[in-house]
Order: sequence, then C-alpha cells, then structure tokens
Amino acid sequence: MAALTLKQIAEKLGGEAIGPAELLIEGISSYESAGESDLTYADSRRLLPAAEQSRAAAVIVPREIESSVKPIIRTDNPRLAFARALELFWPRRRPQPGIHPTAVVGAGVEIGPGVHVGPHVVIGDAAKLASGVEVHALTSLGDEVEIGDDTVIYPRVSVYHRVRVGKRCIIHSGCVVGADGFGFVRSDNGSYIKVPQVGTVIIEDDVEIGANCAIDRATTDATIVGRGTKFDNLVQVGHNVRIGRHCIIVAQVGISGSVVVGDGAVLAGQAGIADHLTIGEGATVCARAAVMGNVPPHTIVSGYPARPHKEQLRAEAASLKLPEALVELRRLRRRLEEIEERLKQDGRG
Amino acid sequence: MAALTLKQIAEKLGGEAIGPAELLIEGISSYESAGESDLTYADSRRLLPAAEQSRAAAVIVPREIESSVKPIIRTDNPRLAFARALELFWPRRRPQPGIHPTAVVGAGVEIGPGVHVGPHVVIGDAAKLASGVEVHALTSLGDEVEIGDDTVIYPRVSVYHRVRVGKRCIIHSGCVVGADGFGFVRSDNGSYIKVPQVGTVIIEDDVEIGANCAIDRATTDATIVGRGTKFDNLVQVGHNVRIGRHCIIVAQVGISGSVVVGDGAVLAGQAGIADHLTIGEGATVCARAAVMGNVPPHTIVSGYPARPHKEQLRAEAASLKLPEALVELRRLRRRLEEIEERLKQDGRG
Amino acid sequence: MAALTLKQIAEKLGGEAIGPAELLIEGISSYESAGESDLTYADSRRLLPAAEQSRAAAVIVPREIESSVKPIIRTDNPRLAFARALELFWPRRRPQPGIHPTAVVGAGVEIGPGVHVGPHVVIGDAAKLASGVEVHALTSLGDEVEIGDDTVIYPRVSVYHRVRVGKRCIIHSGCVVGADGFGFVRSDNGSYIKVPQVGTVIIEDDVEIGANCAIDRATTDATIVGRGTKFDNLVQVGHNVRIGRHCIIVAQVGISGSVVVGDGAVLAGQAGIADHLTIGEGATVCARAAVMGNVPPHTIVSGYPARPHKEQLRAEAASLKLPEALVELRRLRRRLEEIEERLKQDGRG
Repeated sequence: MAALTLKQIAEKLGGEAIGPAELLIEGISSYESAGESDLTYADSRRLLPAAEQSRAAAVIVPREIESSVKPIIRTDNPRLAFARALELFWPRRRPQPGIHPTAVVGAGVEIGPGVHVGPHVVIGDAAKLASGVEVHALTSLGDEVEIGDDTVIYPRVSVYHRVRVGKRCIIHSGCVVGADGFGFVRSDNGSYIKVPQVGTVIIEDDVEIGANCAIDRATTDATIVGRGTKFDNLVQVGHNVRIGRHCIIVAQVGISGSVVVGDGAVLAGQAGIADHLTIGEGATVCARAAVMGNVPPHTIVSGYPARPHKEQLRAEAASLKLPEALVELRRLRRRLEEIEERLKQDGRG
Repeated sequence: MAALTLKQIAEKLGGEAIGPAELLIEGISSYESAGESDLTYADSRRLLPAAEQSRAAAVIVPREIESSVKPIIRTDNPRLAFARALELFWPRRRPQPGIHPTAVVGAGVEIGPGVHVGPHVVIGDAAKLASGVEVHALTSLGDEVEIGDDTVIYPRVSVYHRVRVGKRCIIHSGCVVGADGFGFVRSDNGSYIKVPQVGTVIIEDDVEIGANCAIDRATTDATIVGRGTKFDNLVQVGHNVRIGRHCIIVAQVGISGSVVVGDGAVLAGQAGIADHLTIGEGATVCARAAVMGNVPPHTIVSGYPARPHKEQLRAEAASLKLPEALVELRRLRRRLEEIEERLKQDGRG
Repeated sequence: MAALTLKQIAEKLGGEAIGPAELLIEGISSYESAGESDLTYADSRRLLPAAEQSRAAAVIVPREIESSVKPIIRTDNPRLAFARALELFWPRRRPQPGIHPTAVVGAGVEIGPGVHVGPHVVIGDAAKLASGVEVHALTSLGDEVEIGDDTVIYPRVSVYHRVRVGKRCIIHSGCVVGADGFGFVRSDNGSYIKVPQVGTVIIEDDVEIGANCAIDRATTDATIVGRGTKFDNLVQVGHNVRIGRHCIIVAQVGISGSVVVGDGAVLAGQAGIADHLTIGEGATVCARAAVMGNVPPHTIVSGYPARPHKEQLRAEAASLKLPEALVELRRLRRRLEEIEERLKQDGRG
C-alpha cells in the first residue's frame, strides 16, 4: 500500500483539496474503522458529521461542501472517487505472465501475450485466451472456450466447452458456466429422457460474476449475459436466458429458462423469475419477489406472487389490518342482527 | 456435426417423412433461431405456424399433422423426437479412455474397462470405477467411493468418502456429494457440539445432478436419491433425506433433513421443505412454495406457508380484494351507525 | 469401526449402564435402521417405545428413565451422548501429515507440525498453516492466508488472499471465502464501476462452514464470522457482515452486506436479511423469512416481510378466513340495504 499526499490524491481523483496539501495519507477506509492516517468519504452533507467525528485524516466530500473540521477533497461523485482512491492505494496485483508447469493445456490452444495460467489449470483443445487473460489455479476450461482480453478467472472455475467470455470480465471462484440446461422429456412410463443441450453461453464484455454462480448453456442457441452486467454470488441462470446490458443480479437470484431480462434491470436478492417471462428494460424486481408474469419496463415489482410494488405495499398494509377487520365484521353483524330483531318486533308490535 | 437426409432422419426417429426424401439437413435448432438447412420441431398444431414461418428446412410434427408448407417428419412425440435428433447431430463426445498422468489415484483402486480419468483428478484409496466411467478434470473422489457403469462426472466435483453413485448418472461441475449433514447438539453454555456424520449418500442409477448442488451424507444411514431423478442447479439436500424415483427437483430447491419425497414428485424452483416432512408420490410443490407440513400424494401445493394450490389461488384473489373490502367495511359501519342513530331517535320520538 | 461393551461405552460417556455389562455393541444408528448389535438413543420418555421396539441391542436414555425392556445407558443428555458415542465408533480419520508432491506451495509459506497438504493443493506466497491443519485435495489458498491449529479444509475450497481462519474450524467442499463483495458505483451512462474490495474475511475459532457457501471479503475492513458459529450449505454472506458467536445459519440463507448478527442468533433455512440490518442477540429468524427491518434481541420473526412470529401466525390465520369474510361482507351489505329500504318505506309510509 502506497502513501500519498492530500494534494496528490486530489489531483488523481480530479478533485479539489482543502487543507494541508502535504498531509500524508497512508490508507483508505470506511469512517467506522478509519485510522488516523486514513482517507474516508461522505456521500452527502447528511453523512459528513459521522466522517468528521471519525479518526480519519481527511474526507472525500461532494462539491457542495465548502469546508469541514477535517481536510477534505471535493469531488463530483464521492463514492466514485472513493472507488478510484481504493485503486490508488491497492493497485490490482497482477500475477506473473506465463503458463505454470503444472497446467495441462490441450492441443491447438492459442494463448495471447501476457497471459497467466496458474497451477493445475486444465485447458481443453483449441481454446483461445486473448491478451492479458488471467486464469487462476485449479480452473477448468473446456474445448474451444474463448476468453477475451484482460479477463480474470479466479481459482476453481468451470467453463464448459465452446463457451465464449468477453473482454475485461471477472469470474469468481466456484462458478460453473455452460453446464447442461435442465431439459427433459417425460416418457410414458414416467421416466425422463434428457434433451441434449448442444447450445452454449456467451458472456459479453465487462461482466462480473460472483462466487458459486451457475449459468447453463442453451439447448441449441446461446444463453447470453449482456455487456457490463454484474452478478453477485450463488445466482442461477437457466438455459436460453438472455440478460441485457448493465443489469444488476443480486445474490441467490434464480432466473428460469428462456427468460429475457432487459437492459439496466435490477433483480434484488433471492428474487425468482418463472420461465419464458420478460423483465422490461430498467425494471426493478425487489428482494425475494417471485415473478410469475411479465414485468413492464421501468416498473418496480415485489411480493409473492410479484405485483406492482405500490400495490404490494398497500396489500401488506391492508393485511396488517385484517385481524382487526375480522373482529369488526363480527361486531357489525351482531349490531345488524340487533337492528333486524328490533325491526321485526316493531313490525309485529 | 453430421449432415443427414430428411429420409435418414425420419427412419432413425421412427417417424414418417413428407417432402423431398433427399433434402439435406445440416443442423437442428429451435424455430426462433433455425437456419435454412436446420430441422426444428412443433409440439402441437398450435405451434406449427411459427415453425412454418421460420427459416428452418423441415419440421418435426405430431402424427396428426398431415401436411405443411414445409417438409415434415411426423412422429408420436415431437419433443422426444427432437431430443433424439439432437443426439444424431451432436453425438456425445466421449473422452479418450485412460488415466491422465497428472491424476493421483489411491491404493487399491479398481478401475473398469474404458474408464477416463482426467487431468488433476484425485481418487482416494479403495475406490471403484466401473466400466465406461468418465471422471473429468479436477474432481475429487474420496476413499471407498463407488461409481457405476457409464456415469459421467464433470470437472470439479467432490464426492466424499464411501458415497455410492449408480450407473449412467451425470454429475455436473461444482457438486458436493457427501459432505457432513448439519447436526449439532447445543451445550449448556450455548456452544454447539458436532454430531459426527458417519452415514453416506447413495445415488441410484440414471440420476442427473446440476451444477453446484450439495447433497449431505446421513448421520448414520444413507441419504438416498432414487433412480431416474433429475436435479437442476444449486439444490440443497440435507442429511437422511430419501428422494424417490423419477422426481424433478428444480434449481435452488432446499430439502431439509430427514424429508421423504415420493416417486414422481416435482419440486419447482426455489421451493423449500421443512425437516422430517413427507412429500407424497406424484405431488407437485410449486415454485417458491415453503412447505411446513406433509403433502398428500398427487396433490399440488403453493404459497408461504404452502397449502393446496387452489386454496392458495383463492387466498391470493381474496387478498387482492382486501384493500377495497376494508373501505367497504368502514362504509357499512357508518351506514349502520346512521340506522342506529335514526332508530334511537325513532325510539325517543 | 470398533466393538465395545455396554459397560465400556457407559464409562466413556459418563453414563450408567443397566443391563448385561459385557453386552457387545458393534455399531451405532438411529432406531429406524438399527441392527441387532447397534446402540441407539431416545431423547425423551416419549421416544423410548420406538427405540425399544427397534432391533437395537441397547438404548441411550435420559437419567429419569429407570428401566426398559432393553439394556440402557442413562445419561444427562442422550443426544450429546449419542454424538460422543458416534466418535467412539467412528474415530475421525486423520490423513498422513506431509505435503503431497503435487501440491504447489508459494514462497515463504510457514507450515506447522503435523500439517497435511493434499494432492494438487495450491498455496500462495507467505501463507501460514498452523499445527495440525488439514488442507485436502484441490483446494486453493491465496497469498498471506492464515489457518489456525487443527482446522480442516475439505477438497475443493477457495480461500482468497489475506483471509484468516481460526482454530478447529471445518470448511466443506466448494466454499469460497473472500471473493469480492458486491460493490459498484453507477456511472452517468448507466454502466457500473467496480468498487475495489480491499478488505478481508476473518473466521474465528470453532466455526463450521457447509458445502458451496460464499462469504465475501469486506470493502475495506473485514467480514467476520464469530467463534463457534455453524453454517449449513449454500449460504451467502455479503461484504462487511459481522456474525456473532455460536450462531446457527441454515442452508440457503442470504445475508446482505453490512448486516450485524448478534451472538446466538438462529437464521433458519432460506431466510434472507436485507442490507445494513441488525439481528439481535439470541433472535430467531424462521425458515424463509424475509427480514426487512431490525430484529430485537431474543425475538422470533417470520413471514415476508418478516414480523414478530406470533403476529405472523395471527395474520396467516386471519388470511385463511378472508375468502369467507368477503362473502360475509357482501351478505351484511345486502341485509343493511334491506333495512335501509324498509326504513325509507317506513319514513315515506
């Protein structure tokens, strides 16, 4: 980890330092655990006091903050500046280029310049690793797999045959890309006959996939993950799914076969999407929602089954009132009966 | 990928070709992405127009279709015929028999004829691999594991000691079969003491297990997966579970300890079953259902907590009407109060 | 598996044998599948008849049981005694100490006495394995990883760089500890920029982690799993999470970023916790609960969204009555209308 002055950091972040230019910053941290020579950040004026009361040496703040009890760096987007500052202090460690002698590399494999292939990696025949690719220890790449420039594949990943991964992707440990889709035909005697899954998976550029995800290959075409989409851990993607660009897929989401997810959609944690549905562009599926129908673009859904989020909130509020309403209903019936009784007597009288 | 004539394909599928017998088919695809020399299929008369309007050269259709604007192959079960045709065009690639020199094979291991053991596989002592077994790269088989004829274990699978896998099974990448069941005794000071899990797992014949599933070993006996059952990805099976034959377990299902699942049951995506319950033969647990009680044979349950599916649908429909009903309830009370007020005045008057 | 007399077992368990002291016990099992020379257990008087009717040779029972039709061993805690007896019959098999010649060990790695490093293990630079550690086949430990005394890491685990694991932990196959947390900043053009995750993970002593779990490293500090906490399979832990001591985290639970879980909490199967929440000490989150707010200490929550369990049960009971209540509501309105009509006529008359 390097040490930089307040001024140096401000320059690298395109921000403006207010405070002692030569102040030495030796680390970076959230305000909760910042040490005395750490830089931290406050996303908004509201969060500034917490950062000011922390032990941090200086704070990255929005442009509208003019001064502080602490040295500050004013930036357009403090969270983005914080991300950039993290890169300054923790520059990505790249492993040595070269193929580890214990790696097993198939016939006709093309390996670009600067590629790292770690210990005990297994690469099938006719695979292609473009320039700067990192394939870490104990990963298996099948025959004819193609990996684009500067993609990082962490230890213990499986990429089945013929899968294509784009440029600058990151695939975390435990992922399985290109296993067979779940396709069976039920025979007359109740047993299931496998439908061969002869398609593939295409991961476009700048995709990140968290640990232990599973993305199945298509039956005949390709399961597609669009450019810039980010997956958290333990996500399931069925066969023939097409996910758009710049989507966010949070942990433990399940996407059934043949679903289409539009660009910029957000699927929050543990959400599930039934098969053959379409999630519109820019839509948000809230955490744990169970989507059983198409979701229009730029809408928010939640609940089980999922419905428009506002409707779901109204339904939840209503359900909280239900026990009381049932009591009220009984009470009304009794009052009604009393009236009926009285009117009957009046009628008789 | 081979190329075959319409007539050749029809013969191999036991179907009847109507159209130019020598028409050359070079591939197979869904109708959405079929090319001009591809074969596709239509499951029913309703789906025929879409296939007819596709670019496909020919269509597999049900027997009752007599003609089409495209060459057709009439079969009893188009989806099954499609599965078989996929096998014709994409015959399964079997790896070379033999043990890769980088594999580490324990003492007293029995290896049958035609077995493939891939690079960096690790096999414990006294394991048995029957005829035609494929164990792909980077897989770990524990001591005394037994694998039946022609089973395929994809790269990066863990099979713990003494687990038995039947014939013609397929286990996908990332699966863990036979890890310890989740068993602890709470001690007086609040800490947990491990209950040793000394049982095992038995996977019967013709089972397929998707990527990144976890099937725990029993405490003292065996967790059992019955013949012909198919698992999708990321499924959790607790210790002492017994799953019947020809079940379908969709992605991200969780089956708690000691559950019994009857033959032919279907557990849809993200369903969960609480411990010690019985899911009856032929029952269907709908997607995301949270089963908290036994499910009778041949019934369908859904919801959280799960109940009979029709009841759940009625409850959902009712809950949609609840906000309006609460308004109506208030309105009725006001009307009732008006009547009461009037009767009181009448009484006084 | 050893064979022991009833008396020997009772002595080792600190229990009292009632029956033939020299009775030879050759195994141990649940009562359902006990053989004629097996020991089994009954947790309470209620469960004793089932154990008595089993084929078992003898039964571990609570102290308050004075006699039985079978030989018994009276103990304070039969389930704990059963766990201990399992250890007697199935003593843990420890692999040979030593580093397998196929393991790839980085520069400056410190390895304590009695350590086992299995085949095809890959260990990064400057890692430290304390005394008695077992690292099984095909596991990857990153640079500067530290593993405490007697911890067991099963085959095919990934521990990313700088993660620290305590003493006597057990990590099952397929786990990924220390992959990047899910942190991105949305840029103006809708694409996402990665926030480097430069923190780490600390697993304290006596933790067990089931198969295929994913525990992410913190953004700048440490994701922490407290001493004695036990994880089932396929659990997701986001970045910056702090889990207390002696917690139980059942299969497929998802814990979002920055959540704090208090000591002794229980998160049951498939539960989900939204980000930045606090689960109080000793709280119980029921199976499948979707927690969207803080949970006070020593409370029980369930439902989606989660609420106090009793309230949730009342709500469920009420919702069962809703369809009937809607009918009743319509009926009341008709009766009310009849009264109104009559009063109108009376008024006119």
